[in-house]
Amino acid sequence: MNQKQLVGEKAATFVEDGMVVGLGTGSTAVYMVQALAERVKNEKLSIVCVSTSKATEKLALSLGLNMKPLAEVNKIDLTIDGADEISPDFHGIKGGGGALLYEKIVATNSKKNLWIVDDSKLVNTLGKFPLPVEVVPFGCEHLFEKFKEKGYRPEYRKDEEGAKFITDSDHFIIDLYLEKIEDPKAFANELKNEVGVVEHGLFIDIVDQVIAGTPDGKIEIETK
Amino acid sequence: MNQKQLVGEKAATFVEDGMVVGLGTGSTAVYMVQALAERVKNEKLSIVCVSTSKATEKLALSLGLNMKPLAEVNKIDLTIDGADEISPDFHGIKGGGGALLYEKIVATNSKKNLWIVDDSKLVNTLGKFPLPVEVVPFGCEHLFEKFKEKGYRPEYRKDEEGAKFITDSDHFIIDLYLEKIEDPKAFANELKNEVGVVEHGLFIDIVDQVIAGTPDGKIEIETK
Repeated sequence: MNQKQLVGEKAATFVEDGMVVGLGTGSTAVYMVQALAERVKNEKLSIVCVSTSKATEKLALSLGLNMKPLAEVNKIDLTIDGADEISPDFHGIKGGGGALLYEKIVATNSKKNLWIVDDSKLVNTLGKFPLPVEVVPFGCEHLFEKFKEKGYRPEYRKDEEGAKFITDSDHFIIDLYLEKIEDPKAFANELKNEVGVVEHGLFIDIVDQVIAGTPDGKIEIETK
Repeated sequence: MNQKQLVGEKAATFVEDGMVVGLGTGSTAVYMVQALAERVKNEKLSIVCVSTSKATEKLALSLGLNMKPLAEVNKIDLTIDGADEISPDFHGIKGGGGALLYEKIVATNSKKNLWIVDDSKLVNTLGKFPLPVEVVPFGCEHLFEKFKEKGYRPEYRKDEEGAKFITDSDHFIIDLYLEKIEDPKAFANELKNEVGVVEHGLFIDIVDQVIAGTPDGKIEIETK
């Protein structure tokens, strides 16, 4: 069993009967959604699920999970999602899959956020993973130039056909190849305050618990 | 001649041959665009114009103005736009017409911003005019509740059919009936940092010059 499957299945055991559950996006989250659907069927759990992307919505519906729009639930009890990097002080980078906006909206409406990763995602300093910035297409070329001038090494996210990747909200993504983010909080603030920036992949003070898989098949659970 | 026409026509005289000009949105801007098109024709001015909305784009094209997408110009020399409120320290509220996002993107890419208003828009304290907040539709109901709990008296902007108004970027607008904004800078920061908020109608440190019309047909020009 690979690490992603290992932590995905472990995370599914954290869901309790009666919960409203946020379902993350990405390859690790897929394992969690599959394991959760199994549990619901076998244990006859009564849960409501909210999705963080059109892709996860489709998967969860195909597995028979009880989906509701975010608008129709009060508060999400637990959201389980993947991450691209996590620092020792529990900040993170997300958005490698391009779903950062919905993921962050769901996360901020959740009482508890649990991230599932393989332990290569646990880093000392954030920034080696390119930081996605979701932008309004109108005028984004000027924002791109600004990032370039500041030395943030921006690249437009591309789709499989080489065209600009379009998010579930019809925005573009500019990935910043920063290598190191010395002060994630300050940088998050700087980015969000740019006119034309809708959201960015820095998740500050959001995750509560991390489940990490190791190459030798062990699981580490860290709580903030 | 009404005040809007008066200041609109006056503002058009600030445009110089060779300029890249940002064209605002709204009833006052319409007069300016019309007067500018007249000048271009009569004086054979060679200018390039950038629009802040689909509506202005359509008007300007119909009048034969030379339009370019924001992406294709380097920097805008002068943007002329209306405003809903202007404070003595040159902050303002815009977005009554629903074009605040594109207006702010164009404004931040402009060397100089000129606002044209009737003098009823010059206020001591911002906030009597409802403050528009442009939001991502996904999960906006929770943002709406949060604003309500904070006492910001939110209302969804509606279109003529009573459905939620949809911006040029396919977002919704939540108007905040605040009556008074004591600290516009801090409030702008608070709003922009909410997950799901794309932009808001507080224009802080953006306008350089204001042309205001008075009921007796005079014009006041104030420079920051």
